[in-house]
Amino acid sequence: MTASTLASRSRHVLALMIAAGSVLACITPDALAQEGRRRRGGDQEAKPVQLSPEQTDQLTKIATDRKLNVDDLLSAAKTYMPSGRHDDYVLFSSGGQSGQVFAIGVPSMRLLRSISVFTPESWQGYGFAGEADRVIDSLKINGKVVAWGDTHHPALSETKGDYDGQFLFIGDKANSRIGVIDLRDWETKQVVKNPLTVSDHGGAFVTPNTEYVIEGGQYATVLGYGYAPIEEYKKSYRGMVTLWKFDRAKGRIDVANSFALELPPYWQDLADAGKNASDGFFFLNSFNAEMATGGIEKGNPPFEAGASKRDMDYLHIVDWRKAEAAFKAGKAKMINGFAVLSMETTAAEGILHLAPEPKSPHGVDVTPNGQFMVVAGKLDPHVTVYSIDRIKAAIASKKYSGTDDYGLPILDFDAVKEAQVELGLGPLHTQFDDKGYAYTSLFLDSAVARWTLGGEYDSLNPEPAWKLVHKTPVQYNIGHLCAAEGDSASPDGKYLISMSKWSVDRFLTTGPLLPQNFQLLDIGSTGTTMPVIYDMPIGVGEPHYCQMIKADKLQSWKVYPEVGWNPHTQSLDPNAPKKGQEGVVRDGSNVIINMTAIRSHFSPEHVEVNEGDHVTWRIVAAETAQDATHGFCIGGYNINLSLEPGEYTEFTFTADKPGTYPFYCTEFCSALHLEMMGYLHIKPKGTK
Amino acid sequence: MTASTLASRSRHVLALMIAAGSVLACITPDALAQEGRRRRGGDQEAKPVQLSPEQTDQLTKIATDRKLNVDDLLSAAKTYMPSGRHDDYVLFSSGGQSGQVFAIGVPSMRLLRSISVFTPESWQGYGFAGEADRVIDSLKINGKVVAWGDTHHPALSETKGDYDGQFLFIGDKANSRIGVIDLRDWETKQVVKNPLTVSDHGGAFVTPNTEYVIEGGQYATVLGYGYAPIEEYKKSYRGMVTLWKFDRAKGRIDVANSFALELPPYWQDLADAGKNASDGFFFLNSFNAEMATGGIEKGNPPFEAGASKRDMDYLHIVDWRKAEAAFKAGKAKMINGFAVLSMETTAAEGILHLAPEPKSPHGVDVTPNGQFMVVAGKLDPHVTVYSIDRIKAAIASKKYSGTDDYGLPILDFDAVKEAQVELGLGPLHTQFDDKGYAYTSLFLDSAVARWTLGGEYDSLNPEPAWKLVHKTPVQYNIGHLCAAEGDSASPDGKYLISMSKWSVDRFLTTGPLLPQNFQLLDIGSTGTTMPVIYDMPIGVGEPHYCQMIKADKLQSWKVYPEVGWNPHTQSLDPNAPKKGQEGVVRDGSNVIINMTAIRSHFSPEHVEVNEGDHVTWRIVAAETAQDATHGFCIGGYNINLSLEPGEYTEFTFTADKPGTYPFYCTEFCSALHLEMMGYLHIKPKGTK
Repeated sequence: MTASTLASRSRHVLALMIAAGSVLACITPDALAQEGRRRRGGDQEAKPVQLSPEQTDQLTKIATDRKLNVDDLLSAAKTYMPSGRHDDYVLFSSGGQSGQVFAIGVPSMRLLRSISVFTPESWQGYGFAGEADRVIDSLKINGKVVAWGDTHHPALSETKGDYDGQFLFIGDKANSRIGVIDLRDWETKQVVKNPLTVSDHGGAFVTPNTEYVIEGGQYATVLGYGYAPIEEYKKSYRGMVTLWKFDRAKGRIDVANSFALELPPYWQDLADAGKNASDGFFFLNSFNAEMATGGIEKGNPPFEAGASKRDMDYLHIVDWRKAEAAFKAGKAKMINGFAVLSMETTAAEGILHLAPEPKSPHGVDVTPNGQFMVVAGKLDPHVTVYSIDRIKAAIASKKYSGTDDYGLPILDFDAVKEAQVELGLGPLHTQFDDKGYAYTSLFLDSAVARWTLGGEYDSLNPEPAWKLVHKTPVQYNIGHLCAAEGDSASPDGKYLISMSKWSVDRFLTTGPLLPQNFQLLDIGSTGTTMPVIYDMPIGVGEPHYCQMIKADKLQSWKVYPEVGWNPHTQSLDPNAPKKGQEGVVRDGSNVIINMTAIRSHFSPEHVEVNEGDHVTWRIVAAETAQDATHGFCIGGYNINLSLEPGEYTEFTFTADKPGTYPFYCTEFCSALHLEMMGYLHIKPKGTK
Repeated sequence: MTASTLASRSRHVLALMIAAGSVLACITPDALAQEGRRRRGGDQEAKPVQLSPEQTDQLTKIATDRKLNVDDLLSAAKTYMPSGRHDDYVLFSSGGQSGQVFAIGVPSMRLLRSISVFTPESWQGYGFAGEADRVIDSLKINGKVVAWGDTHHPALSETKGDYDGQFLFIGDKANSRIGVIDLRDWETKQVVKNPLTVSDHGGAFVTPNTEYVIEGGQYATVLGYGYAPIEEYKKSYRGMVTLWKFDRAKGRIDVANSFALELPPYWQDLADAGKNASDGFFFLNSFNAEMATGGIEKGNPPFEAGASKRDMDYLHIVDWRKAEAAFKAGKAKMINGFAVLSMETTAAEGILHLAPEPKSPHGVDVTPNGQFMVVAGKLDPHVTVYSIDRIKAAIASKKYSGTDDYGLPILDFDAVKEAQVELGLGPLHTQFDDKGYAYTSLFLDSAVARWTLGGEYDSLNPEPAWKLVHKTPVQYNIGHLCAAEGDSASPDGKYLISMSKWSVDRFLTTGPLLPQNFQLLDIGSTGTTMPVIYDMPIGVGEPHYCQMIKADKLQSWKVYPEVGWNPHTQSLDPNAPKKGQEGVVRDGSNVIINMTAIRSHFSPEHVEVNEGDHVTWRIVAAETAQDATHGFCIGGYNINLSLEPGEYTEFTFTADKPGTYPFYCTEFCSALHLEMMGYLHIKPKGTK
């Protein structure tokens, strides 16, 4: 073929491609989707699968070559997702010290998306919008940007104790913050900083109708960023738990209607809200009831020993409706601008009771019916089960074994205890299924224990109540665990995730820093059948806790509702430029750029400003097709946007370095994506 | 059981756990690993797998319930990895606009780890070491931190044209930078900024023995951050390609011995180095040989049309040994402090020749034997194949069809062209296998084409040379593709990744921003058998290109070689505190903290400084067991470290906000991990 016949053919191709300014017009996502389903049979009816002798041979040959055994083939069949078939559950996992949230499909254990919360991330354009970036502003603490978080506990919003799929809250242990994610567009809308404490542990946990997001503290400090030497620990250091009021209509935490409880300087840990039988209460663990203050360098016992001396720590039982009433009645004092109910008030009003719990507990988990609270003391081989009926009765009859150093009443242990079940070494956290079983993580045993609940759950499984049934080994050292909707009022009993903290040899060595290991267990059967069916490396952070929601509960937007949508206000933005209104508006040294982006060009393509100008750049992605995302960046100016279909955004910068700057689309949007660019000219001072 | 018998049992557990200060002493990783292998049969011999009738029933029942067909079962068996079994290949993928690199196991398609390069990331403690962070310093451009990158092309270091597993280079398109990763510890050691250009495209590509890392430019600009209005495009704007000298012994790019070639303001694109027959050359595409300057807002054709008008663009053929000789002979001029060979010099010295290439090419890929260069012009349905023998002959006999506007000789198209193969719409990139096939991505067809090579490859497969054999549809719109070692001198011919840019309906909707789709194809057979066997969502950035290396070529460290290791210098650090030397050293308002971290405590646990002190904090992770990583953070001070076994690091900050700050370990290191904490007291001015 000669160059000229080539040329005529390629003109034909180009004509196909550039149609009304929109490349890919010839290959719409809908058409692609239908084609994809047809190819892969995504919508096929369930009809019995049969293997011919040849197919069986093919399968066993692959297994033999790859050294798979029959269990492996069964596990593969339980977890494999063909192209275009969607997972049954979404696991929303904290990203640990990455500061992010990860969404993972179950049972395929594929990482579907990360969501930026406390750490700026450029793919999502989160924190890369120049000088007046609202994300960066929201991350400031005492005037300084703290651009990371230690995300610990995600909490899906709930209605009547069940996940409703609307919002996700996530706590930052390192800096005591809560992030609010809107699950319509999977973006972080708000970050609130707790003004009382430096760091926390327990946040976020929600009450059954998401009235409040509960954030428990951890390491005691002087509330409100005060100073006191370590010698004044008992006198001046305090714990706290904060009840953040959630405004569901606005999709934001309402800080003015939020308040905290002052607590003793025990290290509070996880919280769980009561539901059904225990609605109106929440439960909060603690450890270091010893009030040990460490100091290994001075010859003192280190915290690891000092905080583990006592036989009992304290379960904190909080009547949050009483607390709310006291707050509304003006009984709070202000610390660093935030309302706090003092220990005197919580004791006087009957808001807070303590109950002994065996030692150094890590998890308190409420059964789906709200009847029982399961506490796992990591230095005790048992789980201890409390009953809400016993707790209520003990409170009513003031069945106390005394008060603590701060005057808080301590309920009698034997009066509130329902049962203890010996499980093994290092029990931490418990989740539930629909068959009357509880599942507890055993850190030191490196196992998941299945055991039976009592009460109304007793009849659901073949074994007697309050008994260990089975332990499945996991690799290695499980922290939290998560069953399908397993901490809600109606667990599904299908899958369970072991959040194994050490992977050691499970995956290829990735240098000295290794991934964690999310192991998927099939808990669909009863008795001793509970196999590990998948290992997923987590090499993007160390997740702490996660929740697993039925995928069909999520009603996510496929594109923004209208072109010109501002994701921060969740409404059409009046500043969003419309097609035909693009251009540059100058007011002295303040310049506004109005730009549209559509496959495959920006308009305008030439932008000229003067050195020193203050530039506000407004961009609308004028796309309406799903997945037609554009990006926008200017090299050297730390600016990158993710412009999802319909999205409006703006960024600002000072044009302080003159030169000739290409800007371009950073998402591969079309065949002519590379041509989707333009030039920003920053004219040097003194240039004509 | 009573509280007191509980107490005696729990004391027993604690005694087990705290042994010589090191929790987990009772459960060593090695023991765990052996146990894990035993459980799962990781080391088992290959013995024929057989399915009993009951097992077949079990399998087909699972398949029926999950609506899997027989092909799905075969694909599942080809990709599933049992716990503890390691993948055969590692895919090092650019992370696109996330600024990171992702390492993915093949065939399981599990994300093993991200590696931070251009974007700070807190899990890895990358860029969170306070005021004098070397990472943050390395990310400055013209004095300002540019804390993200658009990572495009990763390049594994090579020896004789094959991956040697030692280093990985990665380019930042947005800001024209190259990152250097040491694959012993999988950490970024260096970021170099190109002083000539704002952004690039082609970097990084290596010469066959990693003598140079090649970074091609893209959008023309005024070299050295100059300014010129768009009207002076032809006169003042230039392209460039930079040859970064790599010092393998130091593991660093040697900037002083690096240089660039000035190029016409065509938009240069991908590069590939010659090897074997074409050793000594590299090849660089370009598009926009039209030198279109856009300006849709002025009624001009937008770039997408203007840059697509001509029938031919130019393949740039560079004799890099001649270029090196000219540079060493002092023939370069300096632009913004960097050595540049002018177009006059490259023409006069015979360094650079152009050859026509059909239109708007995106990839140029050299066959494993170095004989052929395959160019895919995205607006032409063919790939065009050039031969190095023809190119050499044409250069020797000066078989020119003319010169371009800048005096560069253009080789005659028909003289250098070996073959053209019609494949379909939107061909972009090509990779190779061991069976004489080439594989080309077709963006608009949304398919991977398999076609036959000629010359010495002709006999390897059943089909005639230079023919399309098969197209496998992919979902959707493939950009780059990557076969196992498929761009090296000895491809493996096993797996191929389709880097599909749109996922649309392939996965659950994750809001308006969707993941990309890495699809795994089995290319182990010949002819028309080339199925997609796995879909992997990529929801952490939009990868651009990747390379797949045999896992056993990587010789990664499991822990750092000695306790006190500085990963930046890759040597023992003289400042690393030793056990027993912990403490606080004060010199006026400069304070040095010497700290060790070992399960499960820091030493010291109490650190007191004065408001306004300048603090240098030195920490050693005194661990030697694999995966025994600690973290370290101080809330509110934007500090988080990842302390891998043996690692030494330091951070600095000014103690400007007084208060009582808990610090704690941010990696779940042991059962007493929560107790691994201490207090930083920042004493307010005026406190006694």
